[in-house]
Amino acid sequence: MNTIITIGREFGSGGRELGRRLAQLMNFAYYDQEIVTEIARRTSFSEQYVDAVTSKTPIIAAPISIGRSFSFYPASDPMMSQTTEIFSLQCKILKENAEKSNCVIVGRCADDILKEMHPFRIFVYADAKSKFQRCREKADENEHLSDKELTQKMANVDKQRSRYYAYYTGHKWGDRLNYDLCINTTAIDIKDAAAAIAKMLD
Amino acid sequence: MNTIITIGREFGSGGRELGRRLAQLMNFAYYDQEIVTEIARRTSFSEQYVDAVTSKTPIIAAPISIGRSFSFYPASDPMMSQTTEIFSLQCKILKENAEKSNCVIVGRCADDILKEMHPFRIFVYADAKSKFQRCREKADENEHLSDKELTQKMANVDKQRSRYYAYYTGHKWGDRLNYDLCINTTAIDIKDAAAAIAKMLD
Repeated sequence: MNTIITIGREFGSGGRELGRRLAQLMNFAYYDQEIVTEIARRTSFSEQYVDAVTSKTPIIAAPISIGRSFSFYPASDPMMSQTTEIFSLQCKILKENAEKSNCVIVGRCADDILKEMHPFRIFVYADAKSKFQRCREKADENEHLSDKELTQKMANVDKQRSRYYAYYTGHKWGDRLNYDLCINTTAIDIKDAAAAIAKMLD
Repeated sequence: MNTIITIGREFGSGGRELGRRLAQLMNFAYYDQEIVTEIARRTSFSEQYVDAVTSKTPIIAAPISIGRSFSFYPASDPMMSQTTEIFSLQCKILKENAEKSNCVIVGRCADDILKEMHPFRIFVYADAKSKFQRCREKADENEHLSDKELTQKMANVDKQRSRYYAYYTGHKWGDRLNYDLCINTTAIDIKDAAAAIAKMLD
């Protein structure tokens, strides 16, 4: 069976960087935005639309316990039906990729969706100051956010990730019991962490 | 400055084994029960008594926020005064050891007590089934506990550790924000984890 590494991460914690480094070191396939591109390719939706749908919880306030019963919603609700279609396709693509080769997958509830393949589940986090600093350093040149706006954006992204994860998996995002390893990148060098994990999983 | 590794751990998760292996691999001093022995040596208390005091929260129900104000309790309460004396001595010995050489320290709120020395803080945990199995394998030959009794014992030990940590540090035991690395030993081989961490910190 292939080795699958999944990475959940707080916004600004460097989870994506860790994933890329791991994939490079271990010569694994790497999937992140690639999943969105593939969903868009197989449907009539734009990447932008798919991106929005796969990072936000549906607006309908359904209890978590029925969050995975996709047939629950009336077919007459086109928005809900699209969301369901996209999530189902995301599951399918994740499984196809995981069956194809060893890989690293960032986000997308992959730890839960692929649980039968026993992925190695990493969660990356950091303290608020460190995440803020990383976001500032990596910010798009065209994005001029004040400190307050950036802090708000960071909180919003993590709130969305947390809701999305809870909605589709029924579990608490970032709860250590759902992961094999939780790494605080406040003081740990991501390059060193990637090398150590690669060694451990080799 | 010396490299200090602190290990918090759930009962049965293999945290002590990880600590021992790390100390061996890195040629670091290792402290666990040694602290209790040293406290007993410097006081008139038996090791057994010190052990009990350093793993249980004082009975007086003081709010966490004043848990560290040792002078709060009337000198006329001999039990409280002994508890305070032992905890203060534990802090002193931990600092002496940490200043002496690189070391691994298991438990004893060392992550918080030594925070000014920026220890590398590990928390070790596992799922209930895996911890139960490890406890069974490592159980004292003279200890004949039923499954129910062992489960109860495991829960009690962790409850005590959690209360002790909260009482003396004001923080939540096992909360990932208080650690640099949280390792779930359910699926991770402790030997491999120790080798990887040793490499990362080298």
